[in-house]
Amino acid sequence: VSKAGDDMRTLWYDDSIQKLKIIDQTRLPHDFRILVVDTLEQACEAIVHMRVRGAPLIGITAAFGVHLALKNDPGALSQACAALAKTRPTAVNLQWALSRLADGLVSVPEPQRASAALEMASTMLAEDAAACSAIGEVGLALLQKILSAKVERGGEPVINVLTHCNAGWLATGGWGTALAPIYKAHQAGVSVHVWVDETRPRNQGASLTAWELAQSGVPHTLIVDNAGGHLMQHGMVDVCLVGSDRTTAKGDVCNKIGTYLKALAAFDNQIPFYVALPTSTIDFELNNGVREIPIEERAADEVSHVSGLDDAGVLRKVAVAPPGTRVSNFGFDVTPARLVSGLITEKGVFPATTQGLLDIKSWL
Amino acid sequence: VSKAGDDMRTLWYDDSIQKLKIIDQTRLPHDFRILVVDTLEQACEAIVHMRVRGAPLIGITAAFGVHLALKNDPGALSQACAALAKTRPTAVNLQWALSRLADGLVSVPEPQRASAALEMASTMLAEDAAACSAIGEVGLALLQKILSAKVERGGEPVINVLTHCNAGWLATGGWGTALAPIYKAHQAGVSVHVWVDETRPRNQGASLTAWELAQSGVPHTLIVDNAGGHLMQHGMVDVCLVGSDRTTAKGDVCNKIGTYLKALAAFDNQIPFYVALPTSTIDFELNNGVREIPIEERAADEVSHVSGLDDAGVLRKVAVAPPGTRVSNFGFDVTPARLVSGLITEKGVFPATTQGLLDIKSWL
Repeated sequence: VSKAGDDMRTLWYDDSIQKLKIIDQTRLPHDFRILVVDTLEQACEAIVHMRVRGAPLIGITAAFGVHLALKNDPGALSQACAALAKTRPTAVNLQWALSRLADGLVSVPEPQRASAALEMASTMLAEDAAACSAIGEVGLALLQKILSAKVERGGEPVINVLTHCNAGWLATGGWGTALAPIYKAHQAGVSVHVWVDETRPRNQGASLTAWELAQSGVPHTLIVDNAGGHLMQHGMVDVCLVGSDRTTAKGDVCNKIGTYLKALAAFDNQIPFYVALPTSTIDFELNNGVREIPIEERAADEVSHVSGLDDAGVLRKVAVAPPGTRVSNFGFDVTPARLVSGLITEKGVFPATTQGLLDIKSWL
Repeated sequence: VSKAGDDMRTLWYDDSIQKLKIIDQTRLPHDFRILVVDTLEQACEAIVHMRVRGAPLIGITAAFGVHLALKNDPGALSQACAALAKTRPTAVNLQWALSRLADGLVSVPEPQRASAALEMASTMLAEDAAACSAIGEVGLALLQKILSAKVERGGEPVINVLTHCNAGWLATGGWGTALAPIYKAHQAGVSVHVWVDETRPRNQGASLTAWELAQSGVPHTLIVDNAGGHLMQHGMVDVCLVGSDRTTAKGDVCNKIGTYLKALAAFDNQIPFYVALPTSTIDFELNNGVREIPIEERAADEVSHVSGLDDAGVLRKVAVAPPGTRVSNFGFDVTPARLVSGLITEKGVFPATTQGLLDIKSWL
C-alpha cells in the first residue's frame, strides 16, 4: 500500500474464488484485515457493523449483496433488497443502488439474475471509482484556484484543507469524494496539508482518514472535532472539504454528525465550504434536509466507550463515562444549503441551490 | 456524596493536619481519590496535570500554593508566585489570585506571611463559593423565565440545557458556574434536563459533568461534541450555559475548545447562549479576545490516546490514531461577544458588551 488513486480499493470481487472481499474498517488503523463476504447475511452484517461505510460504498456493497443472495437463491430478489434496505437509513445510495438493481433484474429470467447482478454491481463499482476520480480532477482545479488566490494575497504556498469524517477511497469505489481532490493535488505536486477532525463517536477521522493520508504520504494533522472553529478564526484553514450521505434538491447536505458546526464556523470566517459527492448521493425527492432526511440513531456504547490499542498492542474498549450514563447518538446532521459554497460532482462544481441541482439533473 | 451546593467541595484546607486536600479529577469518574497537597511543587503539579482545573479553582489552588510555599520558606513569595503563574496560561483567575496575594502579603512581615496567605486563600475559597451560589440564584431566575416562555408557547414543562466541559462544583470553590443555576433549579423543583457535551480531548463532560450531575440526581444525557448543532436544529435545546476562563472588556468569552462552535449553532437557531462567570474571570485589560487571549497548547497524547476503564475495571490508556500521527491540541477558543446572549455573574445578568462590562466594573 503506497499511493492513493486507482491502486487503492476497499472492496473487490475476487474472481478466483467468486466471492466478495472487503477491508474490515472496524479494525483500522490498528489491524489490516481482509474479510470474505459470501452471503446476503454477511453483506448486511458488514454494512450494519460498519465494516464497510461511506455512502457510495454501502450502495456498492448492497449491489454485491444482491448478487450473493441470488447466487444462493435465484428467487430472492425482493427479499434481498428489503433486507439490505433496512441496514442503514440515512445514506440515499443504498436505496439508489437497490432500485437500480431491482429495476434492472426484474425482467431477467431467474437463472441469469445472479450473474446479471454481479455485472451490474461491478459496473456500479467501476462507475463510482470513475466518478470519484472525476471529482478529484474537478476539485483539484478548485484547490489550485483557492491556493493561487492565497499566494497572491501573500499567504504561504500551501493549501490547508479541513475535512470531517472519512470520505476517502475507504468510503467509495476508489479515490474518495472529499479526499479525491487532495490526492490529485498531492500527486500533481500541489502543496496540501489536511486538518483531520477525529470525528467522534466512531473516530473515522483518527482511525481511517489519518491512516489513508499516511499511506499516501499526504501531510496531515489530527485535531479534535472541537478545534476547527479556533483554527478558522486564526486563518489556519483555507477551505473545508467534506462528503455527503444525502443531498437534497435544494442543496441541503446530510453528512456525518458535526459537519453543520464546521459549516457554521466556515461561514462565520468567510472560508469556502465545499461538499464533494457523486451524483448518486443526490435525493431529488427531498427539499428540506433538516426536516425530511431520516437521521440514524446508533448504539450508546459508541459514545460511552472508546476502542483503541493499549500499550501491549491489544485492541481494547474502555469506558469514558460513569456506568449507567444515558446517551444520545445521532449519526448525521444536515448542513443547510445557505452554508455550502458549492457541490463538487463528477460533472463539475455547482451551486448548492435549486437551480444548481436542476443543472446537475440535466446532466444525468 | 448525595447533593450539590454547600455540601460539595473539590478542595479544602484540613486544619487537623494543616494541609490542603483535593479531589484528584484526573481519576474521575472511575476512581474517587483525595490527594494531600503540602508543597509548592505539589500545588504546581496538581494544576499542570489538571488534578484541579476550572478557572476559579486554579486561582484558589494557586492561592493555597503560595501559603504552602511560605510555610516552607517565608521568603519565597515572589518565587512562588512566578512558579504558579507559569502553570497554565489561559485562565486569568490564576494571575488575578496571585496578584491579590502578592499585593496583600508584600507589606506583611515575613514570619506572618504564611498564616496571612492561608487566611487570604481561605477567604478567596469562601468568596468564590458565595459568588457561585449567587450565580446560581441569578441563573435560576433566568432559567425559570426561559421555561415559562417555553410553556406559554405550548412546549413541554422541562428546560433542556446544553453545557460544554465542566463548570460545576468540581471547577470552583463550590456550586459551579454554568452548573450552579442547574443545581438551584433542580433543588427548587424546576424540571431540568442537561445535554452534556463529552468535551474532547480530555472528556471533562463525560467524566466530570456526567459524574457531578449523577451525584445530585439531575437528569442528563451524554452526547458527542459534534451533536449539539443537530439537537438545536430540532428544538431539543432551550438554552446553552457554559463557563468562562477569561472574559474581555468587550464581552468576548474564552472557554474550553469547541465552545465557539456551540455558540454559532445557538445563534443560527435563535437559542439563548449564556455564559456564567464569577467576576474574577474578567480581564478588563483585554478587548479583542480572539487576538489577545493566549491559548494553551497541550500534549499530543490527549488527542491520540483516550483513558478509560476496561472490562476488568482497570484504568487504561488506548491509542485511537495510527502511531506517529501529528496532532494539534489547542485547549480553548474564543466566542465573540456578538454570539453571547448575556453574562450571568454574582452581581446579576449583564449584556456581553463594552457597556455591560463597564456596568459590572462599577459593582466591583
